[in-house]
Amino acid sequence: MSEQNIKFFPVLGIKMSAVSAGIKKAGRLDVVLFELCEGASIAGVYTKNAFCAAPVQVAREHNDAAQARFLLINTGNANAGTGQAGIKDALHCCEKLAAVSGLTAQQVLPFSTGVIGEALPVEKITAVYAEALASMSEQTWTAVAEGIMTTDTVPKISSRQISVAGSKLTVTGIAKGAGMIKPNMATMLAFIFTDAKIDKATLHELNLSHATRSFNRITVDGDTSTNDCCMLTATAQGELDYASLSDTDRATVNAVLQDVYQELAQSIVRDGEGASKFVTIDICEGLEQSECLLLSYAIAESPLVKTALFASDPNWGRILAVVGRAGIPDLDISQVSIFLDDVCIVENGGKSRSYSEAAGQAVVSRPAFTIRVMLGRGSISERIWTCDLSYDYVKINAEYRS
Amino acid sequence: MSEQNIKFFPVLGIKMSAVSAGIKKAGRLDVVLFELCEGASIAGVYTKNAFCAAPVQVAREHNDAAQARFLLINTGNANAGTGQAGIKDALHCCEKLAAVSGLTAQQVLPFSTGVIGEALPVEKITAVYAEALASMSEQTWTAVAEGIMTTDTVPKISSRQISVAGSKLTVTGIAKGAGMIKPNMATMLAFIFTDAKIDKATLHELNLSHATRSFNRITVDGDTSTNDCCMLTATAQGELDYASLSDTDRATVNAVLQDVYQELAQSIVRDGEGASKFVTIDICEGLEQSECLLLSYAIAESPLVKTALFASDPNWGRILAVVGRAGIPDLDISQVSIFLDDVCIVENGGKSRSYSEAAGQAVVSRPAFTIRVMLGRGSISERIWTCDLSYDYVKINAEYRS
Repeated sequence: MSEQNIKFFPVLGIKMSAVSAGIKKAGRLDVVLFELCEGASIAGVYTKNAFCAAPVQVAREHNDAAQARFLLINTGNANAGTGQAGIKDALHCCEKLAAVSGLTAQQVLPFSTGVIGEALPVEKITAVYAEALASMSEQTWTAVAEGIMTTDTVPKISSRQISVAGSKLTVTGIAKGAGMIKPNMATMLAFIFTDAKIDKATLHELNLSHATRSFNRITVDGDTSTNDCCMLTATAQGELDYASLSDTDRATVNAVLQDVYQELAQSIVRDGEGASKFVTIDICEGLEQSECLLLSYAIAESPLVKTALFASDPNWGRILAVVGRAGIPDLDISQVSIFLDDVCIVENGGKSRSYSEAAGQAVVSRPAFTIRVMLGRGSISERIWTCDLSYDYVKINAEYRS
Repeated sequence: MSEQNIKFFPVLGIKMSAVSAGIKKAGRLDVVLFELCEGASIAGVYTKNAFCAAPVQVAREHNDAAQARFLLINTGNANAGTGQAGIKDALHCCEKLAAVSGLTAQQVLPFSTGVIGEALPVEKITAVYAEALASMSEQTWTAVAEGIMTTDTVPKISSRQISVAGSKLTVTGIAKGAGMIKPNMATMLAFIFTDAKIDKATLHELNLSHATRSFNRITVDGDTSTNDCCMLTATAQGELDYASLSDTDRATVNAVLQDVYQELAQSIVRDGEGASKFVTIDICEGLEQSECLLLSYAIAESPLVKTALFASDPNWGRILAVVGRAGIPDLDISQVSIFLDDVCIVENGGKSRSYSEAAGQAVVSRPAFTIRVMLGRGSISERIWTCDLSYDYVKINAEYRS
């Protein structure tokens, strides 16, 4: 999908660099360092995959034990499915970086993404520390966003700067991910930074709540990664102190955070492996949140729906079949209606009388559109974002390791 | 996948014909009639999709109300998502056939498969009744198996004849299906016939139990059709009376039935849309059936696993990631091992020490192989069958209606 126009605001208290360690390909940026100023706090939500990767386990423990000063990220190798050796490798990378920086190993949080099941190339990573530390800057957001990419085709940055209660607030984040995307309480990798002062407990709450409504509402292929992490850092170097804000001003801050989280999450779907369409799934009038989410993911992950979307085919029968099989208890199909943007395709459980193939075709030919299912049984709504399934998805994933 | 060598044994009491009504393409067999002799009993299991198609509703009601004498099957149009008009159309087709045969409409069971959401071409179907009735025969199994195909590339017939307790037993069945395959208490369309005498209640029990271990253990793409039906007919025209058999002889009969059901179910997976590989998923050492089935389908329906299989890539990390995300409660990953046929790829939650890429590659390059996950937490096993995800799956489903 099309390249984004990337603008960003630096975040006071955050320095970064991206260098090439030759993990997968020579010359490609694949090791990224973030340095957090003293006094910064950081909160994380992590993959719920039982085969949680080694760096995720180490990052979680380190962040609980000490004040993080470095985020160490490598691409090209996930250090997942590597057992005790993987833990040892992740720790070793932290120790080496701590040693040259006068810190403890627990002040380094490691993150990895890439191929699962191969030993982490520890020597290659530690060999570039000197170069990475020498090139730290507050400005190289584009380079670090590139440095964490795997099958992504575009770097993903979202950045906002506003004034709240007379104080300037900056929020800037990066993310990566294109396949194995169905984050469960987290995403592939997302790092969001703000210059506000926010205590760690509040920061964790904010991170969880915003990740839930962004990274936890997207799916490319229904596969949850072993390495998902979403980290929110607050440096306290800016003008804004979250604790002293009124409820209204907090709502403004949260709207900006949600904006950045959703833009990053949506950019993952837009860059979904082989994706040619960006599709919003709205489930409305449900009895419970769980049934709305169940149905939204059933539609978003149906290969038959996804291939029809790829073909710009308004094959409403396939959507209807998914609504029927999704497992919503006691569903009264006569109350169900389905829309493609504003075009009603199903009403009273059958094809809408007003529906014309031309009208449906016009909607699904758009690069972005909404599938909306009205269940007619309650007042709960849920929204997720997904993409289509194309030849290129198969090509990318059939050739990934070759 | 390769053409099967089709042999069949006629079933006493069953006549059939297949004719062309021009529903989708001129000249293609698309209407099939089965005539059941007087005294035959028939049992059905049907789709659990809430958007159950009109013919499924009518067939179920008719079979409860009267003794079925005709199965009327059309392809090219599923008569699904058609509301009350669809019910009326299905009934009209039954009434017309009953009228020319001296029967009641309830003695006709209608079945449809094909595109969802278009009106059934009633006139085209009823126009070929005379031709269909004039050409009834006990021998044309291949023609009727062809007559129910949609995106299938080969007709699917399974047939056995054995002697049980000195009596000859014949079981012959046909099935169709290649996509939208994840039967839920039923399959796409399967019609199995035996010349044994079996009362209706027993027949229903047998049909349910055999469908559960065959058609309900396959998935091509995780999508459950609105039209799934699996019908078992017993004509009582042969030598065998099920009620009078010993337990041992009943077990023999059930083994033959299971053989026919599984051969038909597996032939659907082998002919899965775009499939190049036939994959058995064995989940062993589970605590409960539900977790074994949950995991088996999670693996079988993972686009990342399926595309790796298509590429003959022993990407065990993707299998491991699915085991981790499938949602098995309190899974101890250190007890998990995974095999590709006899090659151990994962043990103690990490890559097996004995594993070599060459050994894994050799297995997944085979046209058929088994992925076996040992959970190390109980004694329950489940087995399902699936196929890979190829360019051709996308091609077939992106072009289906054009």
